[in-house]
Amino acid sequence: MTEMAMNWFWDCVTPDLIQTFSVSAMPYTGKSKYQSIQIMDSPAFGRCLVLDGKIQCSESDEFIYHEALVHPPMIAHPKPESVFIAGGGEGATLREVLAHKTVKRVVMVDIDRKVPQICQKYLPSLSQGAFEDSRLELIYMDALKYVDETKEKFDVMILDLTEPLEEGPAYMLFAKEFYQDLNKKLKKGGIMSLQAGAISVMFPSTFLAVVNTLKAVFSVVAPYQAEIPAFGGPWGFAAVSQTLDPRELSSEEIDRRIASRVRGSLRFYDGLAHAGIFSLPKYLRRQIAEEKRVITRDKPVFTY
Amino acid sequence: MTEMAMNWFWDCVTPDLIQTFSVSAMPYTGKSKYQSIQIMDSPAFGRCLVLDGKIQCSESDEFIYHEALVHPPMIAHPKPESVFIAGGGEGATLREVLAHKTVKRVVMVDIDRKVPQICQKYLPSLSQGAFEDSRLELIYMDALKYVDETKEKFDVMILDLTEPLEEGPAYMLFAKEFYQDLNKKLKKGGIMSLQAGAISVMFPSTFLAVVNTLKAVFSVVAPYQAEIPAFGGPWGFAAVSQTLDPRELSSEEIDRRIASRVRGSLRFYDGLAHAGIFSLPKYLRRQIAEEKRVITRDKPVFTY
Amino acid sequence: MTEMAMNWFWDCVTPDLIQTFSVSAMPYTGKSKYQSIQIMDSPAFGRCLVLDGKIQCSESDEFIYHEALVHPPMIAHPKPESVFIAGGGEGATLREVLAHKTVKRVVMVDIDRKVPQICQKYLPSLSQGAFEDSRLELIYMDALKYVDETKEKFDVMILDLTEPLEEGPAYMLFAKEFYQDLNKKLKKGGIMSLQAGAISVMFPSTFLAVVNTLKAVFSVVAPYQAEIPAFGGPWGFAAVSQTLDPRELSSEEIDRRIASRVRGSLRFYDGLAHAGIFSLPKYLRRQIAEEKRVITRDKPVFTY
Amino acid sequence: MTEMAMNWFWDCVTPDLIQTFSVSAMPYTGKSKYQSIQIMDSPAFGRCLVLDGKIQCSESDEFIYHEALVHPPMIAHPKPESVFIAGGGEGATLREVLAHKTVKRVVMVDIDRKVPQICQKYLPSLSQGAFEDSRLELIYMDALKYVDETKEKFDVMILDLTEPLEEGPAYMLFAKEFYQDLNKKLKKGGIMSLQAGAISVMFPSTFLAVVNTLKAVFSVVAPYQAEIPAFGGPWGFAAVSQTLDPRELSSEEIDRRIASRVRGSLRFYDGLAHAGIFSLPKYLRRQIAEEKRVITRDKPVFTY
Repeated sequence: MTEMAMNWFWDCVTPDLIQTFSVSAMPYTGKSKYQSIQIMDSPAFGRCLVLDGKIQCSESDEFIYHEALVHPPMIAHPKPESVFIAGGGEGATLREVLAHKTVKRVVMVDIDRKVPQICQKYLPSLSQGAFEDSRLELIYMDALKYVDETKEKFDVMILDLTEPLEEGPAYMLFAKEFYQDLNKKLKKGGIMSLQAGAISVMFPSTFLAVVNTLKAVFSVVAPYQAEIPAFGGPWGFAAVSQTLDPRELSSEEIDRRIASRVRGSLRFYDGLAHAGIFSLPKYLRRQIAEEKRVITRDKPVFTY
Repeated sequence: MTEMAMNWFWDCVTPDLIQTFSVSAMPYTGKSKYQSIQIMDSPAFGRCLVLDGKIQCSESDEFIYHEALVHPPMIAHPKPESVFIAGGGEGATLREVLAHKTVKRVVMVDIDRKVPQICQKYLPSLSQGAFEDSRLELIYMDALKYVDETKEKFDVMILDLTEPLEEGPAYMLFAKEFYQDLNKKLKKGGIMSLQAGAISVMFPSTFLAVVNTLKAVFSVVAPYQAEIPAFGGPWGFAAVSQTLDPRELSSEEIDRRIASRVRGSLRFYDGLAHAGIFSLPKYLRRQIAEEKRVITRDKPVFTY
Repeated sequence: MTEMAMNWFWDCVTPDLIQTFSVSAMPYTGKSKYQSIQIMDSPAFGRCLVLDGKIQCSESDEFIYHEALVHPPMIAHPKPESVFIAGGGEGATLREVLAHKTVKRVVMVDIDRKVPQICQKYLPSLSQGAFEDSRLELIYMDALKYVDETKEKFDVMILDLTEPLEEGPAYMLFAKEFYQDLNKKLKKGGIMSLQAGAISVMFPSTFLAVVNTLKAVFSVVAPYQAEIPAFGGPWGFAAVSQTLDPRELSSEEIDRRIASRVRGSLRFYDGLAHAGIFSLPKYLRRQIAEEKRVITRDKPVFTY
Repeated sequence: MTEMAMNWFWDCVTPDLIQTFSVSAMPYTGKSKYQSIQIMDSPAFGRCLVLDGKIQCSESDEFIYHEALVHPPMIAHPKPESVFIAGGGEGATLREVLAHKTVKRVVMVDIDRKVPQICQKYLPSLSQGAFEDSRLELIYMDALKYVDETKEKFDVMILDLTEPLEEGPAYMLFAKEFYQDLNKKLKKGGIMSLQAGAISVMFPSTFLAVVNTLKAVFSVVAPYQAEIPAFGGPWGFAAVSQTLDPRELSSEEIDRRIASRVRGSLRFYDGLAHAGIFSLPKYLRRQIAEEKRVITRDKPVFTY
């Protein structure tokens, strides 16, 4: 059975459920100060970035993740000029932000200097030159510390952080205290989005806790979802604000704003897709309504 | 590493992508005249029905599949009294149909007498006694033959058929010729729904061909999707008709119809979920628009 | 890819090395007071017994394991009349012992009443009626306790015990203290054999420690090996005594003793096979010579 | 479950039995004109060479394979001066041959120029500089063609060829016609050894056919085995000659010849190991005796 003899990457969704895909090459394997970094080529997904053994993005579906993360808050905001990105070292979140003509300044803070280097070398389609854009200020430090110390405020803030694995660098970044700090750095009328974990019917636990924690800080919490095949299922996001609710925009208004403000052509997001991602199934809305947990630094939530 | 030594079921999505889940017991393994039948207990998904090595439904998420298959056409119809089901031997499609108070008669045609038997014994929550309902006429024969021969017409027709695997019994059931036959058995103002295969960004090929084939027969073809974790990703459906378009119903009207017509309480489907499942992402709408293939009996389409 | 969609049993040899085989059916899954018990059908190995997630024996190669465990000490002894078996609930060790015409009495002590029941029902070829033999006294209790309390002594003693997994019932049975107790129950001129774990070049650690522990108690310690495919590689055994050394027997003498004493026909063991299993490769003899560990109840050794 | 998310190499022993090991890095992935070539790092086996998806050797157990392949014929020969090697691009077979002080000339013929290059770069411990030895003549061509055309004869010939996979380059090299050609190039009193496939109790089919084919050409055919963990079980070899039988040498004589003729220290092979590898179990000797197939160019045998 020659054809089956090959390499497979196992992405453990839970201890009892694994998504595994074959790997035709591993062009890079290394470690930064913060995490292990791998670049893998998969016949199913194309080239992939893997951090600490978890797939972060694949060439073939990263456009879904990054468009879903960036455009809902950017389009909901009437005129986003200043944008803050936490994480996002691959450069694709930055790429989508910079496609907005209104943007004058982006501050991106990532703790790990090595991820952008590796991605620019092995996955240049992710940043597409975005790191060279003069509107960008790129800072390598702990996003927690930056948010605590900065005097600057932003129209749009985007959290593109890895999941809160016990050993990883990100668990403090999903706590109420950090969301309170972020809220202080949002300009009046500002809006923030973030990825919030897997949203499958069987194990939406992290997502539910994150959404409920956000409710303790923001007046408007609009959870939404998009299907990311490389992540093994639907993925949860949230757009939060004290004033703006992206769910109130009509599909027509969204398409108008995209047409007038965004350079190039989007592949995933438009007015109808917007309606789809914010219209959650009944059981998930009920789970969100019934959730009681609030994540704090003393009571973190970990995923596998 | 004792904890990892166990049984795993491999569901090959493609030759390069496998969803695998651990199996704690296999209460039943057998064969009918038409296919292999297995009942498996999975810590991730609960008890599962597996036909010819493909998972058909799991206790934990079957409600999503069956509500998504049944309620969009049933609710879109102004007063569904007669319903035809092809396949659906598990009994859960029947269960959802019979929850509609307007229904006076259901004809269900399945080729395999053994699947209902095994499911009633090992997965009684699927049918919940539906096979005893006096409104049901259950016929064991080839659905192709039944549709060809019957004189009866129906308000709603539902195709709950396994995927067109080369060896399986279902491949003729995804061809234009069969859709033409079905169309003749729809009452005026009638509507039909069907499951149409995986819909992931990387491999929506079967779904696209099925949707395009339906367009060759029906004036209204409304593709939609729902996330079925046990199937390894989002799943495609379509509602088709010569007159009715479920996308034209408002969320409020859907909720009103559910409240007045459906016994018990739905878990997945309501007005907002309806909006979500019919609002497809931009790339998928483009793929549908660009699809050229029409499946005929001479040019079948097979999935893995 | 229908053909690959199936169940696989994973037997973790180490956390980085897994032998996995497909499972066509699981006729029995249950638990006794002491361990989980599964019967699996494998196209590669035939029907298998699995305890606590570790394969214990398969229909297709159990003859190698049981002949290798039983006949070297039985043949080395000039006239084995009384035999003690610890463990061996499958009944196949008993079957091989009873094939020796000299045997007048067998005492078999197993802690788990359920394993013999399940094996007689699902794997009758293992015991082949041996449990009905009038020479057998079968006692369900802790072998440790039995050996401590009995006044009886034996010509041959055979330890057919599961590996010392941390949670399993067997870890105390690989300690020097137990070997000392066993030594007291061997008749003068008696001999004992036991299975002693995997013996692969990369991870012979348990085997080496067991062999060295035996040296602290017995004058003659003759380690040997046999290939058991279902166990994922070569397996270690030892024959120990104060006086008898099976390595001193010529192949011709062994064949003579088999011919005169053993009913039926052996499949694995004869004079030449005996020479093969006791002639260990150089690196393994060196590892045995260099081993320093002695397992005691305070310092147990655990395998995966 | 972060710790389990990683890469695994699957080596399919049969379609129903897989040995899989985790891969921490893949320093090289490429193709030669003849086969795919991969270098993988495995926590279980160390660095491995993989050709066409089949593991060829691993750092941790290659010494067993190469000592078992080379030393039995070299020691059995009274004074091996000229040696022929077919295949063996890794250089480790050459390394073992050159350790014999009697050797004056080695002709090594491999079809694939790239394997030695890659191995010298990524696995230098295999050849340990052997490719620089002045006694070596290295020829890149088809071994079939070389043997057909050469006028030279050799004291010892060693076939270190990949298994006869349908697509691979080696299947003609396991046929009676090639063995007849080789026989003509053996000097009087010469001896040849070869690897002959897996030898597990369940699937020794290739090995049995090769051994029987050799019997059609050589007066002495001495099959033997060694355990190679990275190959997933015991491996078959044969030493063949018209006159020399290595089984007739005593362990003492073997140890004497090693001491006087071999530079450095062997790890696997010595007199006692020799006795072990040539003393096959009873069932395997019976299978060999009962085998009827003779492999010819018209009736090849393929393994998975």
